[in-house]
Amino acid sequence: MSNETTAKPLDHTLALSLLESFNRPGALISWNARLTGMTLGACEITLPMSQMVNQQHGYFHGGVIGTMADAAGGYAANTLLMPVSECLTAEYKINFVAPAIGDTLIARGKVLKAGKTLVVSSADVFVVNQGIEKLCAIMQQTLFVIPKGSPKVSD
Amino acid sequence: MSNETTAKPLDHTLALSLLESFNRPGALISWNARLTGMTLGACEITLPMSQMVNQQHGYFHGGVIGTMADAAGGYAANTLLMPVSECLTAEYKINFVAPAIGDTLIARGKVLKAGKTLVVSSADVFVVNQGIEKLCAIMQQTLFVIPKGSPKVSD
Amino acid sequence: MSNETTAKPLDHTLALSLLESFNRPGALISWNARLTGMTLGACEITLPMSQMVNQQHGYFHGGVIGTMADAAGGYAANTLLMPVSECLTAEYKINFVAPAIGDTLIARGKVLKAGKTLVVSSADVFVVNQGIEKLCAIMQQTLFVIPKGSPKVSD
Amino acid sequence: MSNETTAKPLDHTLALSLLESFNRPGALISWNARLTGMTLGACEITLPMSQMVNQQHGYFHGGVIGTMADAAGGYAANTLLMPVSECLTAEYKINFVAPAIGDTLIARGKVLKAGKTLVVSSADVFVVNQGIEKLCAIMQQTLFVIPKGSPKVSD
Repeated sequence: MSNETTAKPLDHTLALSLLESFNRPGALISWNARLTGMTLGACEITLPMSQMVNQQHGYFHGGVIGTMADAAGGYAANTLLMPVSECLTAEYKINFVAPAIGDTLIARGKVLKAGKTLVVSSADVFVVNQGIEKLCAIMQQTLFVIPKGSPKVSD
Repeated sequence: MSNETTAKPLDHTLALSLLESFNRPGALISWNARLTGMTLGACEITLPMSQMVNQQHGYFHGGVIGTMADAAGGYAANTLLMPVSECLTAEYKINFVAPAIGDTLIARGKVLKAGKTLVVSSADVFVVNQGIEKLCAIMQQTLFVIPKGSPKVSD
Repeated sequence: MSNETTAKPLDHTLALSLLESFNRPGALISWNARLTGMTLGACEITLPMSQMVNQQHGYFHGGVIGTMADAAGGYAANTLLMPVSECLTAEYKINFVAPAIGDTLIARGKVLKAGKTLVVSSADVFVVNQGIEKLCAIMQQTLFVIPKGSPKVSD
Repeated sequence: MSNETTAKPLDHTLALSLLESFNRPGALISWNARLTGMTLGACEITLPMSQMVNQQHGYFHGGVIGTMADAAGGYAANTLLMPVSECLTAEYKINFVAPAIGDTLIARGKVLKAGKTLVVSSADVFVVNQGIEKLCAIMQQTLFVIPKGSPKVSD
């Protein structure tokens, strides 16, 4: 969406800080999700198939796809916000465009607009089947900026 | 939303069939989610807190809250569709309105409009902390009706 | 959505102030929309059919339905915010559930959650045909609170 | 979003047919909106500022911006569907990212995924002020494909 800019690498300290944040125990780590790419304003998260993340027909679960998209958009924002501030998801909307059949899920988030209080991000989610990537979901998201270390939600 | 009607109980065979569908191995069962209520056009799903479903600050993860809302809205639709047909999520949108701090998450879905091809559902998600329920998220969703046993997505 | 509370009337000065705001020249007034109901946290807007608001088949235009829903949700929030502050729409999502065939459109908005910085509202939109109201669209919306008199958007 | 492909021109008969559809009396024409660009899977609509489309502070009204985005996404889909079929909006979601201050609004829609029954489109909306374009809104949309000449909504 809008114009693609050349990817800008992250400062080393910022990258480590984002990785440390991502790797704290919780849902993403329990499901074996990994932060696999970061540039300024963008982020990639990768998730292997398992019984923790599939649905009844063996595909990746739509809610899990939403989780990956939400996280990718949020971490894309964090590359611009940390270490001074961070963000919480105010809301997101996701469209599913193909069955997520495959062994790996890749969510690529990017910031569309970084405001002082609100950040708008998007994410494209791809499923990888036998080495072939296919777009399976598209997300649009509103994030709420808070000072680092004040975990609250939109209030 | 719109007028509340008196809850109508499900046919016993239909209820068993929905439970069987819900209880197939996958993300929801791995996370210990349970189908805890069903009437015609409505559904309740309950999830206990654990490290599989929280985020870094110890709250329920937003993506997991989205998953519960998505599933509750989808099963609400299934009470009207099964056994003839079932549904796939075309898209959903979720707003987070309070931090999900607590030991249990309850998603209550209901059908707002049941069309032949598309069903629109909503879900309210509550977090339970020391016995007190608090609204933490609100979802609106579009479901795509397919004949039972044809797992495809919007195509 | 959630529990219906008894409608609380507005203070007379606040009601006049909201009416004055609504009646300023612009799209809604040009299209002959009218503010037809207000209680604390809720608002109703009514729009007559005309060639300014229909689409090619003679129905109310989906974008116009979205405009009415957006305005109804926003004014519902303003009943709680004014005169100290007001709100801007950060985003909204609308589902169309029936063709909007009729002579009048009625949008009924209400606040679902009023935070300090963000307000979440919803609106049900009804089309009236020969005296019969029919639900035609359902909206969910995020509003951004700003001090009264500072017209900016999410930044 | 995803990869940009080289724009493919429309067949002359199809282009005329889309223009004829767009130019039928209704809201868009009343407001002086114009179809200003079409390639396969993409569409541009332009709207001049007037009292029919602004809000109280003199900006373009958010609902009007939503209408332009909805129409641009829908006509982008129609370039792929007509003359065999056409589409109706099932739902859309729009984020406002900057105040729409200016003399002209330009909505650019494109198809992200064209399925048999559902099409997913997006639109970026720009406001032009003294010759400078600025992104003011971002939309994501689900369209429902129907045979040409059967005006119904999602049912």
